[in-house]
Amino acid sequence: MTGRFITLEGGEGVGKSTQAKALAAALREHGIEVVETREPGGTPGAEAIRRLLLDGADDRWSAEAEALLFAAARTDHVDKLIRPALQASKWVLSDRFVDSSLAYQGGAGALGIDAVRGINGFGIGEWFPDRTLVLILDGGVERALVRDGEGSDRIGRRSIAYHQAVEAGFRAIVAAEPKRVRLIDAAGAPDEVTARLLAALEDLLP
Amino acid sequence: MTGRFITLEGGEGVGKSTQAKALAAALREHGIEVVETREPGGTPGAEAIRRLLLDGADDRWSAEAEALLFAAARTDHVDKLIRPALQASKWVLSDRFVDSSLAYQGGAGALGIDAVRGINGFGIGEWFPDRTLVLILDGGVERALVRDGEGSDRIGRRSIAYHQAVEAGFRAIVAAEPKRVRLIDAAGAPDEVTARLLAALEDLLP
Repeated sequence: MTGRFITLEGGEGVGKSTQAKALAAALREHGIEVVETREPGGTPGAEAIRRLLLDGADDRWSAEAEALLFAAARTDHVDKLIRPALQASKWVLSDRFVDSSLAYQGGAGALGIDAVRGINGFGIGEWFPDRTLVLILDGGVERALVRDGEGSDRIGRRSIAYHQAVEAGFRAIVAAEPKRVRLIDAAGAPDEVTARLLAALEDLLP
Repeated sequence: MTGRFITLEGGEGVGKSTQAKALAAALREHGIEVVETREPGGTPGAEAIRRLLLDGADDRWSAEAEALLFAAARTDHVDKLIRPALQASKWVLSDRFVDSSLAYQGGAGALGIDAVRGINGFGIGEWFPDRTLVLILDGGVERALVRDGEGSDRIGRRSIAYHQAVEAGFRAIVAAEPKRVRLIDAAGAPDEVTARLLAALEDLLP
């Protein structure tokens, strides 16, 4: 049987990267072999597309072109890394995946969540995550925009209204797919948040 | 009113590039302002994607990833060059456009013409060509494969069977959309072929 495919999602500044590492470590303590990856990127082909996406002027790509590039990069990520790992019975934990496109381009970017799901489904077929954990932090949007880190690229530096629309997009996805996608409170000590993430995977653990 | 959007299509070795120049010249003799372009490429963003598509190993991209990259490049081509020119009442003549994706990735690549039309429709919306002229040459596939030119990139050097399937794909598109898409015999002297192309645009001429 294939491994489990878990993705971690959320807006800017919710501590997603830190939690990805901590969750991978927690899964390994359960004896699970975990492949950690991230988007955009994850494979050489996807990284080449990532460079096209994150560099350059704010209007370099239209919303539609951007969504197609993300879908192409994601397809390569599945083809070359995620599917082979799952077929080798490993678990895969990705920091962002298809739901970022649904929330950012589909929801906040106004392309429509279903249309963005359509082009991604063309690329990745049945390889949607087994479980998606969306970290939500009250005030997370405002906190992100005073940081220099994640907020400094072409997408991260968009307006507060845009990032609030991203969060609304994530909430809409959770409402539509409550079995696959779970909201996780990102407030509190990091190890408390990790425990919440792990609890949301309990039915999948060996 | 917007200008007319004309595309020239066909497999390898049918004389497409030569005819694109000749047809543009013939249209200018009718007093039409013509913007000449080509795919893949046509804009700086699309050219950057073209480099990702044509370089590297034969298995660098899956068929799905390749189709999404072509659709992304085409979207940029429409956004930055084709739509603005048409809205300025110019005609646009493109050497290859969406029907190459339908015939190559959709037909020959076995992704299905409708699925490939779907991801392209996501990107370009209503900006399909007003008329598409498909050059067909008996024995064109075999002729192309002994040449060093067009056949020397990652797609051009595929098998004879692949290129025959491309031709079958073009014939299927013509059958499905006989008003927009026309088959043009590419045999004979170049100026005879140009005259056939121009005749197939007669109802659109001012």
